[in-house]
Amino acid sequence: MLQLLEGGKRIHCHDNLEHTAKSKLEAEDPKNKPECFGVFCLTYDLKAEEETKSWKKLINIAVSGAAGMIYNHLLFKLASGQVFGPDQPIALKLLGSERSFEALEGVAMELEDSLFPLLREVIISINPYEVFQDVEWALLIGAKPRGPGMERAGLLDINGQIFAEQGRALNAVASRNVKVIVVGNPCNTNALICLKNAPNIPAKNFHALTRLDENRAKCQLALKAGVFYDQVSNATIWGNHSTTQVPDFLNARINGLSVKEVIKDQKWLEEEFTEKVQKRGGVLIKKWGRSSAASTAVSIADAIRSLITPTPEGDWFSSGVYTNGNPYGVAEDIIFSMPCRSKGDGDYELVKDVIFDDYLLKRITKTEAELLAEKRCVAHLTGEGIAFCDLPEDTMLPGEM
Amino acid sequence: MLQLLEGGKRIHCHDNLEHTAKSKLEAEDPKNKPECFGVFCLTYDLKAEEETKSWKKLINIAVSGAAGMIYNHLLFKLASGQVFGPDQPIALKLLGSERSFEALEGVAMELEDSLFPLLREVIISINPYEVFQDVEWALLIGAKPRGPGMERAGLLDINGQIFAEQGRALNAVASRNVKVIVVGNPCNTNALICLKNAPNIPAKNFHALTRLDENRAKCQLALKAGVFYDQVSNATIWGNHSTTQVPDFLNARINGLSVKEVIKDQKWLEEEFTEKVQKRGGVLIKKWGRSSAASTAVSIADAIRSLITPTPEGDWFSSGVYTNGNPYGVAEDIIFSMPCRSKGDGDYELVKDVIFDDYLLKRITKTEAELLAEKRCVAHLTGEGIAFCDLPEDTMLPGEM
Repeated sequence: MLQLLEGGKRIHCHDNLEHTAKSKLEAEDPKNKPECFGVFCLTYDLKAEEETKSWKKLINIAVSGAAGMIYNHLLFKLASGQVFGPDQPIALKLLGSERSFEALEGVAMELEDSLFPLLREVIISINPYEVFQDVEWALLIGAKPRGPGMERAGLLDINGQIFAEQGRALNAVASRNVKVIVVGNPCNTNALICLKNAPNIPAKNFHALTRLDENRAKCQLALKAGVFYDQVSNATIWGNHSTTQVPDFLNARINGLSVKEVIKDQKWLEEEFTEKVQKRGGVLIKKWGRSSAASTAVSIADAIRSLITPTPEGDWFSSGVYTNGNPYGVAEDIIFSMPCRSKGDGDYELVKDVIFDDYLLKRITKTEAELLAEKRCVAHLTGEGIAFCDLPEDTMLPGEM
Repeated sequence: MLQLLEGGKRIHCHDNLEHTAKSKLEAEDPKNKPECFGVFCLTYDLKAEEETKSWKKLINIAVSGAAGMIYNHLLFKLASGQVFGPDQPIALKLLGSERSFEALEGVAMELEDSLFPLLREVIISINPYEVFQDVEWALLIGAKPRGPGMERAGLLDINGQIFAEQGRALNAVASRNVKVIVVGNPCNTNALICLKNAPNIPAKNFHALTRLDENRAKCQLALKAGVFYDQVSNATIWGNHSTTQVPDFLNARINGLSVKEVIKDQKWLEEEFTEKVQKRGGVLIKKWGRSSAASTAVSIADAIRSLITPTPEGDWFSSGVYTNGNPYGVAEDIIFSMPCRSKGDGDYELVKDVIFDDYLLKRITKTEAELLAEKRCVAHLTGEGIAFCDLPEDTMLPGEM
């Protein structure tokens, strides 16, 4: 089932589904090997299409997260060309678990049936060392949800171990400039653990997703100001993707004006706005009985597009990134959501022209303290000694009830 | 909560979510009134954007189907601009039920949080006369699934009543050139019932979705031939979206060659291919425990795009359409999946240059007989007298176990 690249021709050994199933039985431990799926196992000459259709070179994208709903929405967005563009063929490498393997095959069948012209390869495996081979993007959605009675320290440990392993695997086999977006919670500290276990990949390449929070903040500011959401810009989420997150109304703009000039209700801004953003996920679960999978997938697509297209003049986007050398005085060596700009090359720089006031600084200090405590609590996973859990309080993740 | 259109300015009475909730309580029977949602209730000047951004005029799209998973995938595809294009602002009018109303609000919240620039209005209602007002597209996904022990006749009746009411509502209030795509099963006969109850809308405008079957047929032919799916063209699904459907390998082409020239396994074509297509949904449910929502949504998007973009030279697509005046000798006055071409104006013409052999004709006759029997069975819903159910056998819908 090995996949070989020879002069632009991708060669696989199967020619139909039955054959795939048969080979699976024959292999020693098939679930540890990457398995191409159905029609995606075929031999074809992609180089010809790259030339005749002016397509870019195929890129490998790894996605973890079993067969959950965020995942399901995201894969179809990726495969449709909506995220990386209509001239970018892609290979999807799906990281599953023993338990989710059949579900992943179901997803792969639906991807087959969707006839996406840009989706050229689909590989399923439960081994991150196979899945992450040469990937240029790793979208890490999979994480265990907090079980009943589990404390945040327990959640940090159980998920941290997953992300430590994934970091080691990325370090060993991924593209040297892989971009990693961590969605699985607690995503900031998971991203920190991941990067600490991948010393050969630039720390700058690791992101924790706070884009859904940013999108929600924009929407709430738009609603309050009575304008459509496309009029809101320069929204920042500072800090942790948890209830200590700081949606920034000091620097945000509405139709180019400072939010405070447009929304003259300081009490609403200080007391209601942040809570609305933080609790949005929970309200949605109450309404619908489901967590916000579709809008999370949209925000992951937004996060990717923000890195591969130039940021509009004067605007920025939020991402949880590594703090070393940050201009805001935030503690070094953590993953902290901050305002970023990109030239569209996959890289970003931190925005310098932001302002602070006492209210904003106080709240940033609180979310920073939480992240520093989370860091101490996972020291055993970052190679920094013995963990010591003194989490300031048992904060919740956005959406947790 | 009325929505008025005045010189390009859309005016709504709410300016935030609390306000919406309050007005809901005040209205007499709020669930019978269309309810704009959150940020989509705002006043804004769309005409300016139509001019400055070279946007097309906003179109109204109705979608029925509560808050199921096909629906969930489809709404986000529509809102993203993927289906109608990046210059086409849209209004989504969501038809729900008493039971699904809160779930629809959840969907609307996620649409808000996704900040889609083209999505300008979202309205929720359980009243089809409100939802269908001025719609140019009606995507009718909602239908009751067959319950345990329910015969196909029972399913035809219970769903037929829904589609009779929706036909009357479309007839009364929709755009006179509305395009209707029926997805809820049994979709051919539901579409027939719908059009019979909408005499003022051209019968040609009603479609039953067989595009997922076509996509699956293309994929299976590609797999068997060992080519990528984009090499398969001219695939037709004939007849009913049921297990009598006829995936046509006589007219289909692979790399421009007749399928029989490429796949020299007549036994596979005659005995396995059709079954593979028909049973794909069931296999997927077994693998995953879920029905194929994402790929169904993709096929609905494909079906719409096939009508609004010119069909590539020499190719065609399948759709269940009204048979009057068909060149194939299929019985008139039913909805039958046939090969279509479009100039991209929303309309289509039937393809003339197809060939038939005894095998194909025999199978087309069988699916035709089933549709004629279904029609007799819903005569009470089409205004054609007393129903007489003599269904040839209790066939299953694709995906039913």
